[in-house]
Amino acid sequence: MSLSSAKPDKIRELIRNEKLFGHTSGMAKGYVQANVVILPEKYAFDFLKFCFRNPKTCPLLDVAETGNASFPIYGKHADIRTDVSQYRVYRHGELVATPNNVRDLFTDEMVSFLIGCSFTFEHALLEAGLPVRHIEEQHNVPMYVTNIQTRPSGIFHGPLTVSMRPMLMQEAIKATEITARYKQVHGTPIHIGDPAAIGINDLDRPDFGEAVQIKENEVPVFWGCGVTPQSVALAAKPELVITHAPGHMFVTDVLESQMGD
Amino acid sequence: MSLSSAKPDKIRELIRNEKLFGHTSGMAKGYVQANVVILPEKYAFDFLKFCFRNPKTCPLLDVAETGNASFPIYGKHADIRTDVSQYRVYRHGELVATPNNVRDLFTDEMVSFLIGCSFTFEHALLEAGLPVRHIEEQHNVPMYVTNIQTRPSGIFHGPLTVSMRPMLMQEAIKATEITARYKQVHGTPIHIGDPAAIGINDLDRPDFGEAVQIKENEVPVFWGCGVTPQSVALAAKPELVITHAPGHMFVTDVLESQMGD
Repeated sequence: MSLSSAKPDKIRELIRNEKLFGHTSGMAKGYVQANVVILPEKYAFDFLKFCFRNPKTCPLLDVAETGNASFPIYGKHADIRTDVSQYRVYRHGELVATPNNVRDLFTDEMVSFLIGCSFTFEHALLEAGLPVRHIEEQHNVPMYVTNIQTRPSGIFHGPLTVSMRPMLMQEAIKATEITARYKQVHGTPIHIGDPAAIGINDLDRPDFGEAVQIKENEVPVFWGCGVTPQSVALAAKPELVITHAPGHMFVTDVLESQMGD
Repeated sequence: MSLSSAKPDKIRELIRNEKLFGHTSGMAKGYVQANVVILPEKYAFDFLKFCFRNPKTCPLLDVAETGNASFPIYGKHADIRTDVSQYRVYRHGELVATPNNVRDLFTDEMVSFLIGCSFTFEHALLEAGLPVRHIEEQHNVPMYVTNIQTRPSGIFHGPLTVSMRPMLMQEAIKATEITARYKQVHGTPIHIGDPAAIGINDLDRPDFGEAVQIKENEVPVFWGCGVTPQSVALAAKPELVITHAPGHMFVTDVLESQMGD
């Protein structure tokens, strides 16, 4: 059985048993993959409130009970301590380790959040015949820190980060219509057109990822990006934050076709 | 100036200064009115998580910073300690007082939640020419405790309560289409038709409110009801919960036409 047609629980089992490493892109095709943020309980209310207040950049898919390693909807039999192939451990905002499991760090006081990832709506864009340039060019999406502030919550605040996909204006309108159905994975664009209007000076120099070609008559289309909750969580410098490593997503039990708002 | 055309801040000022008492129905026409739940911070994460997990019965409009008496979106200059004309104070699940303000009870550790109320979508139903029977009959909507369990969160759990509006099936379909746009105020119906399917034995004997006439060929249409978060908060018996008294809503600064998801 190929990993692309494997079920999510099989993928997670392979990762848990350290038989599978690396990126999860293309695995368990059709199933939602999620960004992961794990925090001590004392920050959980403010972080959940941050997600509620910033749904386009921090689209919350599921949150575990305090101290619980599984998720009521997106992973009933999952174990968040082991089911991501590479974690990032930050102390006071500094990266201190990149382990394959976090069994030792996960206490009764930790709370785990699953946040929507743009893989899901990119599949919908491709199915509608819309261009997704960085997939065509086979590299990571370009991401930019904007001058738009997120709505703060407790210790969590900071600028909004966006990802960019260039297309013709009529395609951008169609993409807005399509992504309106995907509120749990960033929803409609944050901005279409002039990058300077949201504080981006040079599209050729993204803050994360790689630049893409913008063809004649195309406009840049900017969506909220899952890097935002991570960067906001790190900027708050709590004594401990655990995230997935980029591309090493949590594979959920929910089909993309089951999503929707 | 009539209270119906007064702005929300004016209504709240009159209530704050104890120049206005009683129900807020019909006041500040066009503006969203909200259910209120105020809890100690130690329960706030689990209650917010409960709202996230039960959006149809607990549609969260806004949540204040811990210890803060105003709301970032729905009432920037409001004071939740004084701006509701009658509160209900519960200790360990028992009603102990119904004051006109909660200045004495509101400490730095209290967290205030605003939850959507069905007034908003009833206006939309009426504008679409759909029947809202209890308004025609000029009394409170009938509400029923179902056998459907809410998704639990920490100490918060319990059955889902619904409100019921009878209409023809083709009207029910139109009402579903319309309320799909009002996810922040209960959204689409929980159920249409046979009451027994959701554990309701007798439509003539609602658990709260008053029964309505069901005309020939009409089916009962059930929506999630804002009584649910209150009853769930009380059933958990925390040492202190403050809510609005029924009908004595918090009048927000947001227009119904500005809502939407």
